[in-house]
Amino acid sequence: MLVREKRYKNEQGVGGFMRILGIDPGLRTMGWGVIESNGSRLSHIANGHCTSGTGELAGRLLALHEQLTDVVVRYAPDEAAIEQTFVNKDGAGTLKLGQARGVALLTLAQAGVPIGEYAPNKVKKTIVGAGHADKQQILYMVKLQLPGCEPAGADAADALAIAMCHAHYGGKNDVRLREVRA
Amino acid sequence: MLVREKRYKNEQGVGGFMRILGIDPGLRTMGWGVIESNGSRLSHIANGHCTSGTGELAGRLLALHEQLTDVVVRYAPDEAAIEQTFVNKDGAGTLKLGQARGVALLTLAQAGVPIGEYAPNKVKKTIVGAGHADKQQILYMVKLQLPGCEPAGADAADALAIAMCHAHYGGKNDVRLREVRA
Repeated sequence: MLVREKRYKNEQGVGGFMRILGIDPGLRTMGWGVIESNGSRLSHIANGHCTSGTGELAGRLLALHEQLTDVVVRYAPDEAAIEQTFVNKDGAGTLKLGQARGVALLTLAQAGVPIGEYAPNKVKKTIVGAGHADKQQILYMVKLQLPGCEPAGADAADALAIAMCHAHYGGKNDVRLREVRA
Repeated sequence: MLVREKRYKNEQGVGGFMRILGIDPGLRTMGWGVIESNGSRLSHIANGHCTSGTGELAGRLLALHEQLTDVVVRYAPDEAAIEQTFVNKDGAGTLKLGQARGVALLTLAQAGVPIGEYAPNKVKKTIVGAGHADKQQILYMVKLQLPGCEPAGADAADALAIAMCHAHYGGKNDVRLREVRA
């Protein structure tokens, strides 16, 4: 039933450039941010968030899938990065987040985009220099390192930070996965 | 990017008949079972399980989505039923299950199939008469009530039991959802 579109490699992906989609997964709001990296130089492309409204769960997941698919088609990222979910004692919250995260991973897999996963503390340490940085510090560093960038909200800023973290550790992902799935 | 196929109503769905897809969600193995109900009379159509192999998570979710989409397209259920996830203290397990469950719900929403959710104890009580029935008792009752049915495994038997539970409580689902989404 699904039409898997053949992805054409971003021309900028051939050289040292890489376009990265960062995702901060959540059921109510899923932040996303697209950057380009060229060695240590980063530039902002776009950011925003997908929202799922307040209806029944399956419809909300469908809304997230459609919005995130639009982002992937529009910005054609070479790679993606997503936050590792912090599993705590709130089982119901973990389940909700897991369902949204599953849809995000599926969307990327359908487009054949290889995915890096990073723990929240690793993202913070990479971007701010401290594993316990707060949201204001992350926002400050995101805006400092991506001139002209105005994050649409805290989730979008987190998503940009995750993409920046992936740029930092870039190349460790197995890019061959893309060819296999494309 | 997604092609949402227009679903044509199962001819048998017009009268008292209803074709129900039951799903027992899981990341490694996702059981499914299709039955038809006509009032209190049930009949078995098919059952099986989707498997996700052992690769990286996004690829496993993609495999589940493709296999479950095939089942939905092939059997064109009027409604679906899925087990409510039992949230326990195993956060990592809950997250895995949540991600698989999110993909299952998305697959059904993409096809416009309305979904009923049932707690495991409710399924057991409905099928066996006791909320603490074991797998052998469920298998026995599934085979007794669906003559000629040979479940492909414990997950498939559970999925058939969930579908039977939905048949029992059928009609309480908001079928208009299907029209809205189709």
